[in-house]
Amino acid sequence: MRDFSGNHEALSINTATVRKQAPLDQIIEACARRDIGMISPWRDQVHAVGLARIAAQLRDTGITLSGYCRGGFFPAIDKAGLAAALDDNRRAVEEAATLGSPCLVLVVGALPGAREGRPAHKDIELARAQVFDGIAATLDHAREARMPLAIEPLHPMLAADRACVNTMEQALDICDALDPGRSGMLGIAADVYHIWWDPKLAAQVARAGRERLLALHVCDWLLPTRHLVNDRGMMGDGIIELRKIRGWMEEAGYAGAAEVEIFSDDWWRRPLGEVLDMCIERYRSVV
Amino acid sequence: MRDFSGNHEALSINTATVRKQAPLDQIIEACARRDIGMISPWRDQVHAVGLARIAAQLRDTGITLSGYCRGGFFPAIDKAGLAAALDDNRRAVEEAATLGSPCLVLVVGALPGAREGRPAHKDIELARAQVFDGIAATLDHAREARMPLAIEPLHPMLAADRACVNTMEQALDICDALDPGRSGMLGIAADVYHIWWDPKLAAQVARAGRERLLALHVCDWLLPTRHLVNDRGMMGDGIIELRKIRGWMEEAGYAGAAEVEIFSDDWWRRPLGEVLDMCIERYRSVV
Repeated sequence: MRDFSGNHEALSINTATVRKQAPLDQIIEACARRDIGMISPWRDQVHAVGLARIAAQLRDTGITLSGYCRGGFFPAIDKAGLAAALDDNRRAVEEAATLGSPCLVLVVGALPGAREGRPAHKDIELARAQVFDGIAATLDHAREARMPLAIEPLHPMLAADRACVNTMEQALDICDALDPGRSGMLGIAADVYHIWWDPKLAAQVARAGRERLLALHVCDWLLPTRHLVNDRGMMGDGIIELRKIRGWMEEAGYAGAAEVEIFSDDWWRRPLGEVLDMCIERYRSVV
Repeated sequence: MRDFSGNHEALSINTATVRKQAPLDQIIEACARRDIGMISPWRDQVHAVGLARIAAQLRDTGITLSGYCRGGFFPAIDKAGLAAALDDNRRAVEEAATLGSPCLVLVVGALPGAREGRPAHKDIELARAQVFDGIAATLDHAREARMPLAIEPLHPMLAADRACVNTMEQALDICDALDPGRSGMLGIAADVYHIWWDPKLAAQVARAGRERLLALHVCDWLLPTRHLVNDRGMMGDGIIELRKIRGWMEEAGYAGAAEVEIFSDDWWRRPLGEVLDMCIERYRSVV
């Protein structure tokens, strides 16, 4: 298992972690000043500054991507909605390629309208079927663009409104069905926040193997957790066994970044530099 | 599948649903007035009025139990703590027998101290091993008392602080290990709130079969859900496919109660009679 204590070479900052503090270009500058070599930006943050400008800034600073967030949200109530989602995913693949990302992260979506509190129906099996078809269609485009798709299983508490793929096993079943040859073009973004509780996690990480393990996201599970989306903890402040899970990932062949992704009203209120410094410190001490 | 629209014979009220409104004897009276034939009381509610008095009131009213809540919380930091948990579970088995319950529901526990926000450690595998041993020890006593134990898998969002058994599959693996003969003395309390999201649910309900399906708890998953514990919805107000899940249960042989268990700050603020009337109405129309 890699020793992270001596430097922060494998640290990546998912830029949602500091999305309330500054626009993306300033986040990249602040990362560059701290020798943070990788980020994983969100599309809305990229669009707000401009794709070309961010691409140029990345070249200038030498910062690379550990992932691009995000494609997905495939389910819809009609054909037009399904087609619009595929179009949007095609654009996401292209943006990811423009920025040189190693993968496009997929938050697959769930019941249409649920995120806005107005679910169009309750049929999660239908949503799951639409997700399967959506990933299949997007994978064709991703193969052409040589942009791996990383399905992110989301915590079951988000199954209705954000992603109806909720375990590593379920995600790997999709991967095996659509990419039986393990081409490297379809795999998993493993976010410890979503999967730490899973009694089958060790076995499924081993099953995934090197070709399917495309990203590792870290943060922590707080006690108590006060909000289903925006109360994630800084690594070390909760109960997730970060080293154990990273150990399983590395044993299975993962050698990529540890990407810090913290959605937290608390951390969004702190200064950008303070949050980044804490990410570095905790990466070295507890990840 | 049974038709629930014509009467409420199979309705049970888990008395936590109205725990803030009245003591248990008044809850039982209010149920009796509405021809609600079953309840599932919590130990603290029984103790507050007195076990003998509640037993007598049940005989007088003809109300029976669909379950008794709860045993469990097996993990501890030392031998004394583990032994104390087993003692408490023995008492719970005896109380359940005194009240003529068809089963004792087990909320198995998780990281010691986590519920109070001070987890003694982060080792969920250790907690799971202690849960396994605790169920095994309690099962010996339960067999003597002829009191079936119903393991309740809790939602993964409660894995750290309330129950580290989080899927039907995991619970059934424990059942199969400890009771390979399917004696009827060890099974599952299936609460839709905790398991609706599970992509393997239909298969695991079928695997459970009649001998293992000891209880069905109903409520609903709200969008948005604003609290991890106390924001459950009244049946019909959320996105759980209640009829579909009940259909799977009945296809597997379940013929018992549909027990309404709603932890909700909203419903706890409404008058006792109004909540019970709504439970009857929704039981008949959407469960």
